[in-house]
Amino acid sequence: MALARSLRRTNPITIVLASLLAIGFLFFILSPTSTAAFTSQERHDDAAQNPLSPPTKPFRKAQSAAGGRRAPPPVVHYNMNNVTTSGTAANNRERILVLTPLSRFYSEYWENLSKFTYPHQYISLGFIIPKTREGNAAYSALQSAITKTQSGPIDDRFASITILRQDFPPPIQSQDEKERHKLENQKIRRESMSRARNSLLFTTLGPSTSWVLWLDGDIVETPPTLIEDLTGHDKPVLVANCYQRFRNPDTKEMDIRPYDYNSWTDTQRSLEIAKNMGRDEIMLEGYGELPTFRNLMALIADRSPERNTSEIMELDGVGGTALMVKAAVHRDGAMFPPFPFYHLVESEGFAKMARRLGWKCYGLPNYFVRLTPI
Amino acid sequence: MALARSLRRTNPITIVLASLLAIGFLFFILSPTSTAAFTSQERHDDAAQNPLSPPTKPFRKAQSAAGGRRAPPPVVHYNMNNVTTSGTAANNRERILVLTPLSRFYSEYWENLSKFTYPHQYISLGFIIPKTREGNAAYSALQSAITKTQSGPIDDRFASITILRQDFPPPIQSQDEKERHKLENQKIRRESMSRARNSLLFTTLGPSTSWVLWLDGDIVETPPTLIEDLTGHDKPVLVANCYQRFRNPDTKEMDIRPYDYNSWTDTQRSLEIAKNMGRDEIMLEGYGELPTFRNLMALIADRSPERNTSEIMELDGVGGTALMVKAAVHRDGAMFPPFPFYHLVESEGFAKMARRLGWKCYGLPNYFVRLTPI
Repeated sequence: MALARSLRRTNPITIVLASLLAIGFLFFILSPTSTAAFTSQERHDDAAQNPLSPPTKPFRKAQSAAGGRRAPPPVVHYNMNNVTTSGTAANNRERILVLTPLSRFYSEYWENLSKFTYPHQYISLGFIIPKTREGNAAYSALQSAITKTQSGPIDDRFASITILRQDFPPPIQSQDEKERHKLENQKIRRESMSRARNSLLFTTLGPSTSWVLWLDGDIVETPPTLIEDLTGHDKPVLVANCYQRFRNPDTKEMDIRPYDYNSWTDTQRSLEIAKNMGRDEIMLEGYGELPTFRNLMALIADRSPERNTSEIMELDGVGGTALMVKAAVHRDGAMFPPFPFYHLVESEGFAKMARRLGWKCYGLPNYFVRLTPI
Repeated sequence: MALARSLRRTNPITIVLASLLAIGFLFFILSPTSTAAFTSQERHDDAAQNPLSPPTKPFRKAQSAAGGRRAPPPVVHYNMNNVTTSGTAANNRERILVLTPLSRFYSEYWENLSKFTYPHQYISLGFIIPKTREGNAAYSALQSAITKTQSGPIDDRFASITILRQDFPPPIQSQDEKERHKLENQKIRRESMSRARNSLLFTTLGPSTSWVLWLDGDIVETPPTLIEDLTGHDKPVLVANCYQRFRNPDTKEMDIRPYDYNSWTDTQRSLEIAKNMGRDEIMLEGYGELPTFRNLMALIADRSPERNTSEIMELDGVGGTALMVKAAVHRDGAMFPPFPFYHLVESEGFAKMARRLGWKCYGLPNYFVRLTPI
């Protein structure tokens, strides 16, 4: 039923932004209790001077506000030569936009995000939440978490937060694991996810954004240095390896298992399969009935404690669970194709598009982020 | 030489935003001299309440600004159910983002834009200008024009203006008409133009934008009701017919001739040509040595004074000279492919991408906009 409904698509306007919540935070010029690594003077200097500044910058209250009527504001220059993307992002005060499609709110997700060591004043958050009952619950829970953090200690507060609501139901209502991954549902699910990601991206990317971190809403465990670690490699597109904790039925112990099969390299055989596909067919990963013969990053991880987490490999497809992208790659036009693009959709199609634009994609097989355990 | 340089592409970061100029304008709550159709109360109500508002809204000075230190700002809601795209855009106060890649500044372009009858308070402008000597001149001239308009009569002022600088030289230095259109240069030129358009789009599209009007910098003559006329048709993608004034060598009189050949419908024959092309080949329009056999909108216009300017036709490819796009189409992911996409690039590739996303493209063969005359 849910499937039939999604296929109908009578109204092609599938994603319309329904509601936007913007939480702004003013960094106070004088903050006697601040123990920030960045001094209040630095915060002051860093703040946007113009009220029409994009939401990626904290706003500084106009100092001449007391004077009643004002003349039209002067021309304000933002010198964007400093919009770098480098391996030393924090030193250069590079702004990170963390984008999360959210269907359920996990408090562990927020706690993990809150512990990021990258200076929060350079982190903006963007969410897109479906307008479903579950989405409404996620929206409320997220709002509470935001309110708490943004009125908490100054160093914990993020530069800005934007929430978009998707006004159409997701094509597959059930978020049940089995239902979500059925092969026939997967194509529709990932098309819908692509549109959500694109809406979020096109709406929130601003002129001062250096990096975009795509972080799925069910990622509940990452190193707190995730942003520093991923930007540190200074790659246009870089994905971490997503694992899931689970109770191993054999050992009865908690164990981890690979989760995201969307990070891979092509092989001769996988390229041949693609070559023989119909124009609108797509290759999906992780289905026994349709082997792709790709090299999956998920399966070549070194899980030993002494592994080298900096090991890096070039990839042809990437997953979107924890994906760091230079903003310039998106600005060039790389988005998440909701239609088959070289037989690929969503994050895998994005990787192909980035490559068509002349950028390279990479993965960190031994650098783990973890999904909500089951 | 210029060609060789552009092909080198040693650094894939081809478009980095180099400088951003944001001109904000505060709509005064009390404006005794205003003869606006929209009352000052309406302007007040319409203004953004939060300093972190996107630049598509005028900012309203916080009324409690006099009180010294303030508590963290509350959660602010923007009800986006009102982000409609309708045939009665002005009544719904729909926000239009006018995007213009600019290599030369024509004062006639600005004058024409300034005469737009759509309420300027709902119009935001975005420009991208190359970092060349010519670009620098255009940048200065544009700034002067902006400063004049934005400090002029309140009703003439635009909601916000953003200028991006492209920090790489355009691939073909000469803007000479013949040089620009040489077949071998055209592919490179349009790839570069695609990246410029994408940078501009991804950076400026905000949550409250309803429509994006792509208006080339050499369009110097349009009906002042251009926005009302194009939005009035309520189509996802709609292009006007771009003509150029010239002195007819036969009659010695001023005449008009078709200019933009990128708006067309496919024919059986053109589809066959595309089918037999190599994956990375593109079909370009307007070259005798490579006929496409498409139906060109430019050539079927009724040029009589009593023509029906509302006549509308469905299109497979569109030009970017005067192109109205519902923001939802871009948010879905439709951008200007700098790589061959179904053998198409730039605005023609955009049309194909929009169609792949389920949207339809249209043109107005008898509705003329005019390029700088020669």
